[in-house]
Amino acid sequence: MATTYKRLKQILFGRPLASDRLEHERLSKKTGLAVLSSDNISSVAYATEQTLLVLAVLGTAALSYVVPISAVIVGLVVLVALSYRQTIFAYPQGGGSYTVAKDNLGTTYGLIAAASLLTDYILTVSVSISSGIAAITSAYPSLIPHAVALGLASIVVLMAINLRGVRESGMAFSVPTYVFIVIMLALIVTGIYRGMMGHEAAPSAGPVRVDPVSAAHTGIGGPLGFALVFLILRGFAEGCVAITGTEAISNGVGAFRSPSARNAATTLGWMAAILATFFMGTSYLARHYMVMPTPNETVLSQLGHHIFGGGALYLALQYSTFAILVLAANTAFADFPRLSSILSGDGYMPRQFAARGDRLAFSNGIIALALLAMVLVWLFHGDTSSLIPLYAIGVFICFTLSQVGMVVHWWRSKDPGWRWRATLNGIGALATAIVFIVQVLTKFTEGAWVVVLIIPSIILLLRKIHKHYESFSAEVRYAGHAPLMFLHHTVVVPVNGITKPVAGALVYATTISDDVRAIYVDVDPGVESQLVADWKAWDIGVDLVVIPSPYRSVLRPIVDYVKALTHDGDADLVTVVVSEIVPRKWWEHLLHNKTALYIRTAFLFRPNVVVTAVPYLLGHSARLSDLMSHDETLDEENGIASRAPVIAETVRG
Amino acid sequence: MATTYKRLKQILFGRPLASDRLEHERLSKKTGLAVLSSDNISSVAYATEQTLLVLAVLGTAALSYVVPISAVIVGLVVLVALSYRQTIFAYPQGGGSYTVAKDNLGTTYGLIAAASLLTDYILTVSVSISSGIAAITSAYPSLIPHAVALGLASIVVLMAINLRGVRESGMAFSVPTYVFIVIMLALIVTGIYRGMMGHEAAPSAGPVRVDPVSAAHTGIGGPLGFALVFLILRGFAEGCVAITGTEAISNGVGAFRSPSARNAATTLGWMAAILATFFMGTSYLARHYMVMPTPNETVLSQLGHHIFGGGALYLALQYSTFAILVLAANTAFADFPRLSSILSGDGYMPRQFAARGDRLAFSNGIIALALLAMVLVWLFHGDTSSLIPLYAIGVFICFTLSQVGMVVHWWRSKDPGWRWRATLNGIGALATAIVFIVQVLTKFTEGAWVVVLIIPSIILLLRKIHKHYESFSAEVRYAGHAPLMFLHHTVVVPVNGITKPVAGALVYATTISDDVRAIYVDVDPGVESQLVADWKAWDIGVDLVVIPSPYRSVLRPIVDYVKALTHDGDADLVTVVVSEIVPRKWWEHLLHNKTALYIRTAFLFRPNVVVTAVPYLLGHSARLSDLMSHDETLDEENGIASRAPVIAETVRG
Repeated sequence: MATTYKRLKQILFGRPLASDRLEHERLSKKTGLAVLSSDNISSVAYATEQTLLVLAVLGTAALSYVVPISAVIVGLVVLVALSYRQTIFAYPQGGGSYTVAKDNLGTTYGLIAAASLLTDYILTVSVSISSGIAAITSAYPSLIPHAVALGLASIVVLMAINLRGVRESGMAFSVPTYVFIVIMLALIVTGIYRGMMGHEAAPSAGPVRVDPVSAAHTGIGGPLGFALVFLILRGFAEGCVAITGTEAISNGVGAFRSPSARNAATTLGWMAAILATFFMGTSYLARHYMVMPTPNETVLSQLGHHIFGGGALYLALQYSTFAILVLAANTAFADFPRLSSILSGDGYMPRQFAARGDRLAFSNGIIALALLAMVLVWLFHGDTSSLIPLYAIGVFICFTLSQVGMVVHWWRSKDPGWRWRATLNGIGALATAIVFIVQVLTKFTEGAWVVVLIIPSIILLLRKIHKHYESFSAEVRYAGHAPLMFLHHTVVVPVNGITKPVAGALVYATTISDDVRAIYVDVDPGVESQLVADWKAWDIGVDLVVIPSPYRSVLRPIVDYVKALTHDGDADLVTVVVSEIVPRKWWEHLLHNKTALYIRTAFLFRPNVVVTAVPYLLGHSARLSDLMSHDETLDEENGIASRAPVIAETVRG
Repeated sequence: MATTYKRLKQILFGRPLASDRLEHERLSKKTGLAVLSSDNISSVAYATEQTLLVLAVLGTAALSYVVPISAVIVGLVVLVALSYRQTIFAYPQGGGSYTVAKDNLGTTYGLIAAASLLTDYILTVSVSISSGIAAITSAYPSLIPHAVALGLASIVVLMAINLRGVRESGMAFSVPTYVFIVIMLALIVTGIYRGMMGHEAAPSAGPVRVDPVSAAHTGIGGPLGFALVFLILRGFAEGCVAITGTEAISNGVGAFRSPSARNAATTLGWMAAILATFFMGTSYLARHYMVMPTPNETVLSQLGHHIFGGGALYLALQYSTFAILVLAANTAFADFPRLSSILSGDGYMPRQFAARGDRLAFSNGIIALALLAMVLVWLFHGDTSSLIPLYAIGVFICFTLSQVGMVVHWWRSKDPGWRWRATLNGIGALATAIVFIVQVLTKFTEGAWVVVLIIPSIILLLRKIHKHYESFSAEVRYAGHAPLMFLHHTVVVPVNGITKPVAGALVYATTISDDVRAIYVDVDPGVESQLVADWKAWDIGVDLVVIPSPYRSVLRPIVDYVKALTHDGDADLVTVVVSEIVPRKWWEHLLHNKTALYIRTAFLFRPNVVVTAVPYLLGHSARLSDLMSHDETLDEENGIASRAPVIAETVRG
């Protein structure tokens, strides 16, 4: 059974890798771009669309605002990228916002950053996969009813790939990133060229104007009303989702090949340039071709139809959009487990997240991320637009904290050029703080309130875990350097008859102590006399204690007997030895009372009581009671088996 | 925690009862009628309706067949009741069809009877509860959408009541039975009186005739066609559901007060008389008032409306119908656990079904029955008509086997009057065998095939369980009467540092053997040297074995080390002692690696390896490692703690 499991695990996740192969799994710049920047670049698949969705109440007038809003966002992208470039060099070992905020602003701000990042990573997976599936269902509308199932399946596949380890995911994922980059460039260049040649007229063509019906509906008196300002701010806030993922590279510096800081910084530059081009290009084309969001087709798919027609190039656009969004989700699969491991090392997350698994990947973090993202996709029916309002808020908290942290860092370090560096990070912090406030104010009722509740809850949880580990390590700290002591040790063996499993338990009991008591719980008055007679005939030198149980409970008399032995706090040590039947087949477990389990549970919270189950393997040749009969034949005269020499290689510490 | 559970259990199910109160829980005749005959009597709520449903394709012509069919069924009732009256006296200890068939026809027939009875009891609960809820929704049609939920809730309540024990259910349930009997008598008498007075004309009045549309639709040429014969046979088969439950009293003879056989026989007579009267009465009234089944109102409810109007008497009829049907389900709650216990005692069902619980009820049987019945109600959406085709088949198998068994019994015993007794049982057997064949033939496609598959499957399962217990008891049988032997015992203690839990495990290990090895699995090269230095300084006389683990697995090196010690089949005994952290709060369990659990699982199938977890209770004052420090202070010179005397009362066997 164990072998089958091991073989299955190897087929699915590959053979175990030794620790010294860790360095070989690191990323080149090209692979790093594919693995870590896709989150950022892929947001062109939904950022323009989200802005247009908010502005849709203005009708086609929305299109006149989308390009200026996008330009402001691109300015923010450049600012944030420059800020993070500084972080990469200041923190070449990686760690990102959590490390920067913790080091420079203290634990509380570090935890705020950590909680924001954790929610952000989970939402990265949910949003990217939902949007990627939307790219597919735009091309094949008949798949729309299966969107949620497809999304869940994609996450499971991603999880499996990541459990295999980081380099393989980099290699397997480089091609689609570069295909997407090429096709997006082709889309933008062709679109602008055909637009300039006047080849195209959008289906809903006409001069850009304010639709009077929509304008009246929203109660906007004129284009300068307060409601319009609010709408534009909300459109801006939604579009800022394009900036998410900028921090991924600085969090993952440690995954790059040496010189890792320089490689990471170059990759960050490429990423920002690509994003800026694609985002501006998409927004420009959307305005030019007058594309508005619809429920069943994405804006990018509509642009593909206008510019490429419905042929192979269009399909390539949709497939590569899906692929890059899957890679975006993969970014989170690289960063979430790494952050969990750091938090775990600092005692803020369960220890199980700290260690790398067989394939040098952080298995538990990967599994936890996949499960949480699947819950979100399921709860929100795989709808990108309902997930987006939760998404960018956490990111902007991190941006702000990280950059404020960098200001403090430069202030303290007084490195060459610290003044202008601090100023740059300061401007970045101010800008992202403003964006954060805009996000919360404009999207509060759309779902932002959920994030406002969840992030403090996560912080409380992290603190609670930390407190537990702190008090735990204080409690288990062992200072004395004393020799070990021996205690008086009583062994209690519950028996239900003279059978081989009981004999096995008694052999074990007499091996570990001289003070052994067999106890029989008598639930059925009248049966016990035969057992007592048999026991006397057996004559093994162990007393049989018979306890009547008028209420037919087997467990309670045993517990009471052991309680009486230990006298609540007395110095005695009691071991309860029970025989445990281990059947050959799983269903046979249902046919045996789980007495061993019940006894173990009953004594779990009692100090100085140890419960030992002596397994009796049904259908197995060698076992304790057989040994007994065997020794009996060998040493019948003295009744004591000779002590066999121990044959085992031990390494002296 | 354990105390809270105990208190909650006492509030819900009452205080535990001692075994010697068993006799006081037995049934009087009046209570016995309420508890055991309701299954039988309550079938008037649906038997007439099921016959009419089958005949409905004939239109109102159906009404001309229902009275003759009912009369034949009443004849069968009398025959079956007379047969079972003989069984009661022949088997005064109870046991019913299973016991009779097993004793006289052999194990195979006994198991067929047992399997049929088990399915019958489960269906009794599902059918009765579904039909009872239909009585309520007939009165309150707004409850129709909640029928399934109401059914499931009723079964849960029944389960809870039965877990409290049998006498209380008898007392609580007597009143509704007698109320139902009185109201049904009132309905029949009033209905016949008003009919004779010519007070009434049914809403769909007119002379009984074959509806030409329906007749044409079913393709019946004339009233004597083969299709008509088949329909009438099916109507008869459906109506035979009225006979189910006749066996309940003979199965439960043991629950009656002494003289239990005579009391049970008298009760059986009452029951048959009441059923015959009510069933004939209902069928007669249905014909007279021309009542046909409708999806939303039961036939009995329609009769109530016609005869009582819509007032208090009508509601009393509906409520008491519901109540008697709940009691019918309760019959199964008395019989299913009792049969399970008998089968368990014979080794055909898991042992957990054999023993009475705290309240002298067979808790596991009650819970199993409730769960299975709830699954059926849920699967069939609480629809009585779809459950009925599965229902009566099992019962008629039992009737036949039981009566054939009685024929053999009289033949063997040659008791006074054995000839006429055997003849009576033989006629009964023949009649019920014919009914069984009619049931299978006419209802095969309606669901009877499910039962034809399920019953053999249950028989196979019972046999498989029996085979396991047989080979188990042969395997564990201990014949030798030898003194116990001592083996060479090596104790392995995995350590992860010098902490109090580890010290506790080491104290325990040195207490149970002289050959103790501490092992440290080194997953992170470089950390171990400090531990080795600390260990040498600690100087406790236990060797530390350091095992490098390049693949970072902690478990595998421990397993390999123990394997090397035991040499697969060698005579050594190895105990692995692990410290197990027991936190104060449940969620804290998630923060600690479950090493103890993994190690226990890894060695579960290895002979001669015992895994012992030494619990370390977080936040608790007294524990092993404290004891050690304590003794250290007392006996610092010699380093050995004195052995404390054991203070505990033991009863010598």
